[in-house]
Amino acid sequence: MGHVLSIGEMMVQMCPTLEGPLRQARAYERYVAGSEGNTLVSLELLGVKTRFISRVGDDELGSAILSELRARGIDVSWIARDKDAPTGVYFIQRGYPLQGKTTVLYYRKGSAASRLSPQDLSEEVMDDVKLVFMTGITPALSPSCNEACLKLMEMARSHDRPLAFDTNIRIKLLPDRAYGQKLLLPFLKEAKYIFTGAGDLTYLFGPGEIEEQIVQLRDLAPKADIILVKLGKHGAVVYEQDKVFRHQGYQVKVVDELGAGDAFSGAFIASMLRGDTVEHALRYANAAGALTVTAKGDLEPLPTWNDLSLFLSYYEDSEAQLLR
Amino acid sequence: MGHVLSIGEMMVQMCPTLEGPLRQARAYERYVAGSEGNTLVSLELLGVKTRFISRVGDDELGSAILSELRARGIDVSWIARDKDAPTGVYFIQRGYPLQGKTTVLYYRKGSAASRLSPQDLSEEVMDDVKLVFMTGITPALSPSCNEACLKLMEMARSHDRPLAFDTNIRIKLLPDRAYGQKLLLPFLKEAKYIFTGAGDLTYLFGPGEIEEQIVQLRDLAPKADIILVKLGKHGAVVYEQDKVFRHQGYQVKVVDELGAGDAFSGAFIASMLRGDTVEHALRYANAAGALTVTAKGDLEPLPTWNDLSLFLSYYEDSEAQLLR
Amino acid sequence: MGHVLSIGEMMVQMCPTLEGPLRQARAYERYVAGSEGNTLVSLELLGVKTRFISRVGDDELGSAILSELRARGIDVSWIARDKDAPTGVYFIQRGYPLQGKTTVLYYRKGSAASRLSPQDLSEEVMDDVKLVFMTGITPALSPSCNEACLKLMEMARSHDRPLAFDTNIRIKLLPDRAYGQKLLLPFLKEAKYIFTGAGDLTYLFGPGEIEEQIVQLRDLAPKADIILVKLGKHGAVVYEQDKVFRHQGYQVKVVDELGAGDAFSGAFIASMLRGDTVEHALRYANAAGALTVTAKGDLEPLPTWNDLSLFLSYYEDSEAQLLR
Amino acid sequence: MGHVLSIGEMMVQMCPTLEGPLRQARAYERYVAGSEGNTLVSLELLGVKTRFISRVGDDELGSAILSELRARGIDVSWIARDKDAPTGVYFIQRGYPLQGKTTVLYYRKGSAASRLSPQDLSEEVMDDVKLVFMTGITPALSPSCNEACLKLMEMARSHDRPLAFDTNIRIKLLPDRAYGQKLLLPFLKEAKYIFTGAGDLTYLFGPGEIEEQIVQLRDLAPKADIILVKLGKHGAVVYEQDKVFRHQGYQVKVVDELGAGDAFSGAFIASMLRGDTVEHALRYANAAGALTVTAKGDLEPLPTWNDLSLFLSYYEDSEAQLLR
Amino acid sequence: MGHVLSIGEMMVQMCPTLEGPLRQARAYERYVAGSEGNTLVSLELLGVKTRFISRVGDDELGSAILSELRARGIDVSWIARDKDAPTGVYFIQRGYPLQGKTTVLYYRKGSAASRLSPQDLSEEVMDDVKLVFMTGITPALSPSCNEACLKLMEMARSHDRPLAFDTNIRIKLLPDRAYGQKLLLPFLKEAKYIFTGAGDLTYLFGPGEIEEQIVQLRDLAPKADIILVKLGKHGAVVYEQDKVFRHQGYQVKVVDELGAGDAFSGAFIASMLRGDTVEHALRYANAAGALTVTAKGDLEPLPTWNDLSLFLSYYEDSEAQLLR
Amino acid sequence: MGHVLSIGEMMVQMCPTLEGPLRQARAYERYVAGSEGNTLVSLELLGVKTRFISRVGDDELGSAILSELRARGIDVSWIARDKDAPTGVYFIQRGYPLQGKTTVLYYRKGSAASRLSPQDLSEEVMDDVKLVFMTGITPALSPSCNEACLKLMEMARSHDRPLAFDTNIRIKLLPDRAYGQKLLLPFLKEAKYIFTGAGDLTYLFGPGEIEEQIVQLRDLAPKADIILVKLGKHGAVVYEQDKVFRHQGYQVKVVDELGAGDAFSGAFIASMLRGDTVEHALRYANAAGALTVTAKGDLEPLPTWNDLSLFLSYYEDSEAQLLR
Repeated sequence: MGHVLSIGEMMVQMCPTLEGPLRQARAYERYVAGSEGNTLVSLELLGVKTRFISRVGDDELGSAILSELRARGIDVSWIARDKDAPTGVYFIQRGYPLQGKTTVLYYRKGSAASRLSPQDLSEEVMDDVKLVFMTGITPALSPSCNEACLKLMEMARSHDRPLAFDTNIRIKLLPDRAYGQKLLLPFLKEAKYIFTGAGDLTYLFGPGEIEEQIVQLRDLAPKADIILVKLGKHGAVVYEQDKVFRHQGYQVKVVDELGAGDAFSGAFIASMLRGDTVEHALRYANAAGALTVTAKGDLEPLPTWNDLSLFLSYYEDSEAQLLR
Repeated sequence: MGHVLSIGEMMVQMCPTLEGPLRQARAYERYVAGSEGNTLVSLELLGVKTRFISRVGDDELGSAILSELRARGIDVSWIARDKDAPTGVYFIQRGYPLQGKTTVLYYRKGSAASRLSPQDLSEEVMDDVKLVFMTGITPALSPSCNEACLKLMEMARSHDRPLAFDTNIRIKLLPDRAYGQKLLLPFLKEAKYIFTGAGDLTYLFGPGEIEEQIVQLRDLAPKADIILVKLGKHGAVVYEQDKVFRHQGYQVKVVDELGAGDAFSGAFIASMLRGDTVEHALRYANAAGALTVTAKGDLEPLPTWNDLSLFLSYYEDSEAQLLR
Repeated sequence: MGHVLSIGEMMVQMCPTLEGPLRQARAYERYVAGSEGNTLVSLELLGVKTRFISRVGDDELGSAILSELRARGIDVSWIARDKDAPTGVYFIQRGYPLQGKTTVLYYRKGSAASRLSPQDLSEEVMDDVKLVFMTGITPALSPSCNEACLKLMEMARSHDRPLAFDTNIRIKLLPDRAYGQKLLLPFLKEAKYIFTGAGDLTYLFGPGEIEEQIVQLRDLAPKADIILVKLGKHGAVVYEQDKVFRHQGYQVKVVDELGAGDAFSGAFIASMLRGDTVEHALRYANAAGALTVTAKGDLEPLPTWNDLSLFLSYYEDSEAQLLR
Repeated sequence: MGHVLSIGEMMVQMCPTLEGPLRQARAYERYVAGSEGNTLVSLELLGVKTRFISRVGDDELGSAILSELRARGIDVSWIARDKDAPTGVYFIQRGYPLQGKTTVLYYRKGSAASRLSPQDLSEEVMDDVKLVFMTGITPALSPSCNEACLKLMEMARSHDRPLAFDTNIRIKLLPDRAYGQKLLLPFLKEAKYIFTGAGDLTYLFGPGEIEEQIVQLRDLAPKADIILVKLGKHGAVVYEQDKVFRHQGYQVKVVDELGAGDAFSGAFIASMLRGDTVEHALRYANAAGALTVTAKGDLEPLPTWNDLSLFLSYYEDSEAQLLR
Repeated sequence: MGHVLSIGEMMVQMCPTLEGPLRQARAYERYVAGSEGNTLVSLELLGVKTRFISRVGDDELGSAILSELRARGIDVSWIARDKDAPTGVYFIQRGYPLQGKTTVLYYRKGSAASRLSPQDLSEEVMDDVKLVFMTGITPALSPSCNEACLKLMEMARSHDRPLAFDTNIRIKLLPDRAYGQKLLLPFLKEAKYIFTGAGDLTYLFGPGEIEEQIVQLRDLAPKADIILVKLGKHGAVVYEQDKVFRHQGYQVKVVDELGAGDAFSGAFIASMLRGDTVEHALRYANAAGALTVTAKGDLEPLPTWNDLSLFLSYYEDSEAQLLR
Repeated sequence: MGHVLSIGEMMVQMCPTLEGPLRQARAYERYVAGSEGNTLVSLELLGVKTRFISRVGDDELGSAILSELRARGIDVSWIARDKDAPTGVYFIQRGYPLQGKTTVLYYRKGSAASRLSPQDLSEEVMDDVKLVFMTGITPALSPSCNEACLKLMEMARSHDRPLAFDTNIRIKLLPDRAYGQKLLLPFLKEAKYIFTGAGDLTYLFGPGEIEEQIVQLRDLAPKADIILVKLGKHGAVVYEQDKVFRHQGYQVKVVDELGAGDAFSGAFIASMLRGDTVEHALRYANAAGALTVTAKGDLEPLPTWNDLSLFLSYYEDSEAQLLR
C-alpha cells in the first residue's frame, strides 16, 4: 500500500491543566506534538502507513516521543537518538488572554531535531514510499535541516513520488520575511499539493485578496495541482487548476486549537489516497480539523474513519435520532 | 407519605476526566448510575421516600453502589448481594466525536442485577408503596429480570398502586425490534404514566409524526392518563387524554448528558405527587433535566426544590438582580 | 510614583475542581481572594504600587494570604497577624444551579480581619500614597472595622488624597437595608470616584431607572467626579458631571465570575492614573473584567497591560491574522 | 439486635493532597470526620446498628455530612439542621514538621453542633438502644452540649443501658485543666467501659506511671469494668477489675494517623457486643487502629470483619502464602 | 537476532490513585497489564525483539492495549480484534488491608482473549522466533485457549525452539487443583526453563520443603535445564541440573507489587539470551523485580539495562558517591 | 538587621506527580528552585532579610520565578528580565531507579541567568548587606557569570563583609576537573564559611579520608573559620580551627531529596547570625535538611523556627506526649 514519508521535529509539549496565564500554572500534562508527526499520526489512524525521519535526544523525553509515535504505528526506524543535544520542549498557555487561542514558549534552540542533516537520509528511506509530506517548519529549523529537506525533495523527485507541502510558517523561526520567502521557494516549486493559510499567504505575498495571492502562488508553484487554503473556523478552500471548492467548516467549542491544521492535512491526504474526490476530501479534512480542537493534545483527538463518519452524520443530518 | 418503588440495575460508571476518545483516556472518576436508581435519587432529593429492588455483586464495587444509594436515603434493604456474579460496570467516552454526547461500553452481561428474578420480591416490598416506577431496561436485561418485572407489575395492580413506566429502550439490549416491542407491551398496557422519547416511539411504531405515534401508543396503553414525550434539548410534550402541554426546555451548556431523562422523570413524578398541575410538573421536569446536564455524574447534579426554584427564577426572570 | 492604599479582608477561598452542588464536591483548590486585595493585585500587575491594611490569623492560612499578596508585589507591612482570631475562609459552589454563577458559604464571623480597628492605622501608612481605595464590605464587617475605615477616610482627606469607593454591598453582611444605607453614607459623601452596580443602586435607592438612581446618588456624593456603574456582561456606564460613556462589554465564556468587578475597578484606576481618558479607562476596565472571568481564581487571571492589548486588538480587529 | 447510640459533632475535614506545611497546600480533598461518628461508622462496618444525635448547618456542607453518615448506614434521623449556625470545618496539615503526625486548624466555634442542647433529645432516642457511647469532646464543646450529654447519660442510666466513655481530651477545647477534670467527672463516674490514653491520663492525674494513674481513675470510676488505655503505635492495655491484658500493636506505615483511636474503640465494642473475650476484642481493636492509619480519611479506611481477618492472618502467620 | 514469542491476555487495569478499600475509591488511573505481555515489554526494554499472540475487543479499550504494546515495540500483528467479545478489565485494591499487597477484581469472563483458539496461530508466527514463552494463565482461560497453547507448544517443538514456562497459577481460574495440575502438565514436560514460586509449588505438589517439591517437579519436567523459584522479597533460587544459586533479593519500599514476577522472568531471559551466566541473570532478574515494585503500573517501571546498572551499582557499592 | 546577598540562577522545575521513569510521566507539577535562591528562602523563613542578584527571561516562566521569590520576601529588585534569553528549566525523575534519589535533565544552556555579568552589579547592591553567600554553581554557568561572581567577591571584601561559599559542584557544568578546581579556587581562598560534601571534596582533592581532604582544603582556604561537610543522611561535620563537631543527622522517610543541602546551609547561617553556638547551628541545620526531604519541592518544605522546634522536641524527646 505504500508509506507517506515525512521529516521534522517532534517535541514534548507541557500543557497546563487549567486555562489562564502560564505564570500561574502549576499543574501540567505532558503531550508530544509536532506538525509533521501530527499529520503522520492522523494518517495512521486513517489507515495509511507512515515513516518519520527525525532526531530526538538520547534522554527520557526522547524516549517518550518514540513511544508515542510507535504507539500510533509510525515507522520510527529513521529517528536517530542524539547523544549531544536535548529533545525539544515547549510550554503552552491556553485560552488566555484569548479564549480558544494558545501561546507558545519554545525550548527548541539547538535541539536534537535541529541537527538533522542530509546524513540522516539514505536511499532506503524511500522504500515503499508513495508520497512525501513536508512543512515549512523543518527547513526553518537550521541550515542543516534545510539541506536535509532539500535532499529529501530531490529523492522524491528522482523516485517520481509526489510532494505535499504545508507552508506552515512560524514567525519565530523566520522573522526575516525575505529570507523566509527564499527558503520556502524550492518546496513550492516542487509540490504537487500545497497546504497554506491566510496568514502564510500574506507573509509570502503581502496583504491582499486571497484570490490574488493564489495567482502569485501559482507562478511560483507550477506543479501544484491542488492548493488548499485553511481558514480555521471559517473552513477552507481548494483551488484546482480550473475549479474552486469551498467548505465553511463545522462549528464546535474549542478546547485546544493546536494540531487542527495538521489533522486537516492528514485527513485530506488520506482521503485523496483512497481515491475520494476533492470535494469529499475537503469535507473529511474539515471534520478532522474540527474534531481535533474538541479535546486536549495534538495527537489525542485525531479521528478514525469511524469517528469522522459519526461526526459527519450528526452534523449533516440534524434529524438523526440517537438510541443508546 | 408512602414510597416510590422501583426495580433495576445500578452500575459502576467509569468516567474519564477529559473529553476525547476513550482509547486515550488514562484518568477516570468512578460514579454509580442506572436509570431507575437515578430516578429514585431524584425523588429523594425532592422529598419523596423511595425503595429499590436490585442485586449487586458481593464485591467492593457492589458496596460502593449500596453506599451511594444509602447516602441519598433510598431504602436498600431489598438489594441482594450476589456471591456468584459481579456488579455491572461501564465505561463512557465523553464529548467525542460529538460534543455534548456520550458513548457507552458495557460490562453488564451476566451481572448480578441481570440475575434478578421473581424470588427477589415478596409481598412486603409493597409496604407503604404509593407508586411503582419501572423502565424498559430492566425487562430487557434477562428473562428472569423480565419475570421479576412482570411480578412487580402484578403486585402493583393487586395493591391498586399506579405504575409509571419509562420506555427507555436500549438498542444494545434489544437489537431485535420485534422482540423488544413484544417485551414492553405488558408494561405499556398497565401504565398510568408513560415516559418516552422520539427515538423510542420510532423503535416501537416506525418512523412518523409524533402525534401519530401517540395515537398508536394510546391503543396499546388504555390506562395511560399521561404520556410524556421527552425531546432532549427541545423540551418535552405531555399528552393527556384531552390536553397537550408543550415546554421548549431550558438551554444550558452540556457537561454530561447522562441521567437527564431520569432526572426529568423523577422531578415530574415528585411534582405530581405533591399535587402540582401537569403544567407545573412539566416545568420542573424540564428544569431538572437541564440542571442534570450541567455537571458530571448521573446522581451528583440532581436538584433539590431549592435548586429548582433558583434555576427557574433566574431563567424566567431575566431582570433578576443578584446580590452576593 | 506613589501607592494606592486600601483596607479590607483577604480570605482563603476553597474552590471545588468540578462544577455542581457543593454537597457533592470532594476535590478543592485553595485560592485567596477579597475585593480590595483583588483590586490592589490588579493595580500591581498594571504597574501601580499598592499597600494593604489588614489582619490575618497567626496561622498557616494567614501565611498563605501573605505569600500570595507579597508574590504580586503588594506592600504587606501593614497586615497584622492576629493570635486570637483565625483567618477568614469561604467555600464556593460553582455553576450550579446557575451556569456561570457562584454561591458562597462564609466562615468569616469573628475572623482576624473583622477585628481591624483604628489602632491598625497610623500616620505613616499614608507615606507616598496617592489614592485611597475602599469598598462597602470593610465597614460592614464589624463596628471596629467601620471605625478603621472612617479613620482612613479622614486621613485621606487631611492628606488631600482622593478616595475611590466601590459600594460592593454584601447582602449577608448588611441584611438591614436602612442600616446599610447609613453605614455607607460617609464614604459616598467623600469619594471622588464611585464604583457601583445595578443591584447596589437598588439596595441604596430602591427600584427604578439607573439614571434616576444616579441623580439620587449625586445628591449624597457631592465630590464624585466619576460614577461608574458596572453591569456585568452588559458592560458599564460612566457618569461624569456632564458626560456619559457607555461600553457594552466583551462577550466571553464564563469560567469563574468572581473577582471581575474588582479587576474592573483596578484597571479603571490604573488607566486613569497613567493619564488615559475616561473612555480609554472604561475600555480597559471592561477588558480586564472580561478576562478575569475566563479563568479560575480571583487573582490568577488578572491581566497585564500586554494581556489587555492582545485581548483588545483581537476583539476589536476581527481581521487580525495570527501567526504562531 | 439493638443500636449503639452516640452524640457529638461531625465536621468537614479539608485535607491537603500533599504532605508539608499547610501554608503551601493548594489542592485539598474533602472528608468528614468526628470522633463519635467515626466510632459509629466503625461499628456499622462491623455489623452493629448505630444512631447519632447531632446538629449540622442547613448548608451544603451539612448535607455532605449527612450523606456520608447515611452512606454507612447510620440512623441520622436525630441529626438536626441548624438554620442559624454553620457546619464545623477544619483544615489539617499532614506529616509536617513530624512525619506521620497531623496538625489541626479548627473552624468549629459557634458551629451548629456546638448548639446541641437537651432539647435535641427525647425519650424515643433510646428505642432499641443497647449501649451509649460518648467522648470527652462533646461536653467540652459548649455548656449546652454538656447538658445534652448529661441528659443522655441520665437516660442511659434510667434505661439501664451501659455507657462507654472515651476521655478523648482536646487541649484546645479544654485549656483549663481544672475545669476539664471537673467536666469529665460525671461521665467517668457512670461509665462501664472507659477508653483513654497516656496523654489523657496525665491531663487528668498529672505525670506518673500509668498503673498509678489507673488506680486514681478507679477511684473516680466505680462502675468501670473495663479500662482500656490506647498507646498509639505501642498498642494498648486493658485493665479489668482483676486482670490486665497487653497488646503491643501492629507496625504499619502511617499514611494518616487521624481516626485510629476511634476505629480502635469501635472494633473493641463491636467485638465485645458479639461476645468475644476481652483478649480477642483487644486484638481486633489493635488491628482496626493499625488499618485506619494506612489510608487517608477517618471513615474511608475503617475495616470490615473480613478486612480484619485478612490483616490478622497475614500479620500473625508470616508463613502464609498468597495466591492471586 | 530473533524474537521471543508469547501468547496470552492483556487487560485494562483500573488502579485507584489512593490506597485503601476499593469501595471508597473514586479516582482511577488506567493501565494495561497481563503477565505474558508484561514479560515481553520487559524483554523489549532490554533489547530483545518480541511478538505477542492475543485477542482484544474491537472497542476503545482494545485500542488502548494495542497502543501500549506498540509503544514498547512489540510486534502486535498477531493480535486479533474480536467484534463479539469485549476487552478484559480488572480493578485493583491497593495496600489494603495489607500494605504492599494488592487485591484483584476481574471482568475477564468471556473476554476477547478467552476466545483465543488454534485458528489464531499459523506457521508464520514462528518466523524468526528463538524462544517461546508461556505461562499457566493462558491455558486456564478457556479450553480453546488451552488448545491454542498446546498448538504453540507443538510448533515450538517442531521448530526446535526452547520453551520457557512460568507456572503463574491463578487460583480464581483454577480453583480445582486436580484439574489445574493436569492442565499444566504438558507444558512442564516440554519446558527448558521453568519459572515458579513457593505458592505454585505447593499448589502443584502439596505443602513441603521447596527442595522436595523441586525433586517432584523434575520428575514431571525432564527437559528443564533451569528451574527458577521466585520468592518475592526474599529473592529467588535457581536449580540447575547440578547447581543451585540463591539470591536474597533487594529490599525496596513497595509502591505496587504487581508485575514484579513478570519483570523478573523478562530480565532473566534477556540476560541469558545475551549470554550472561546464570548467576548474573539471577542478579539482573532480582533487580528488575525490585525496581518494578517501586512505581505504579506493570509496564511503567520496567527497567532498561542502564536502569539496572545504576540500581545495582548503588545497592552493591554503598560507598558510591553521587555527584549531580 | 542587614541582608544576606546572593547571586545565581533560579529555574523552573518540572516534577512528575508519580515516581518512576521520566519517559512514562505525563502529569507534572511546576516548582521553582535553584541552590542559592533555596538558601535565601530558607533564611527568610528564619527571619533573615535577603537579596538576590539574577536574570530571568522576560517570559511567563520568569514571572513565575519572581512571584515565588517575592512571595517568600526576598528582595528581587536586582533580578533583571532578559528579553533575549529564556528562563532556565529542568525536568526531574524521582525515585527511579534509586528510591529516594532524583535524576535531572536540564534546559539551562544559554538561559537568561547564564548571561549574568559584572554589569548586573553596582555598588548599591551591597547596601545593608551583612553576609554574601555564593555557590560553585554560578561561576560554572558561563565565563560572564564567573566574572560577576568574582566582582561580587571583590565587593564583599572591599566592604568587609564575610563570604559564605558552598562548593556545590555540578559535574555536568564542570566535567573538566582541572578546570573546575581552578575555577573555585578564588572563592575558597576568600570564604569565611565553607560548605561542602564528601563528593565535592573528592572532586577537588581526589579520593581519600575526609580529614586529609580537609587539611588540603585548609591550605587553599586560609580565611575559613568554619568548614562544614554535609554527609546527607549521615549528618554533617563542622571543622573549626581547633574543634570538630559531628552530628549524625535525623532519620526521616525521603519524599524529595532536592534542596536539602540548601536548607542546611540556610539554617546554619541563620542560626549563626542570631548568635547561636556552632553546635546549635549544626543541630538546626541537620533538622532543616531532614525536614526538607519530607515534602515535594525545594522551597515548599523549608521550615520556620517554630517548625524546627517542634521537629527537634519530638526527635529529641521521645517521651513527649501529644495532645490535640
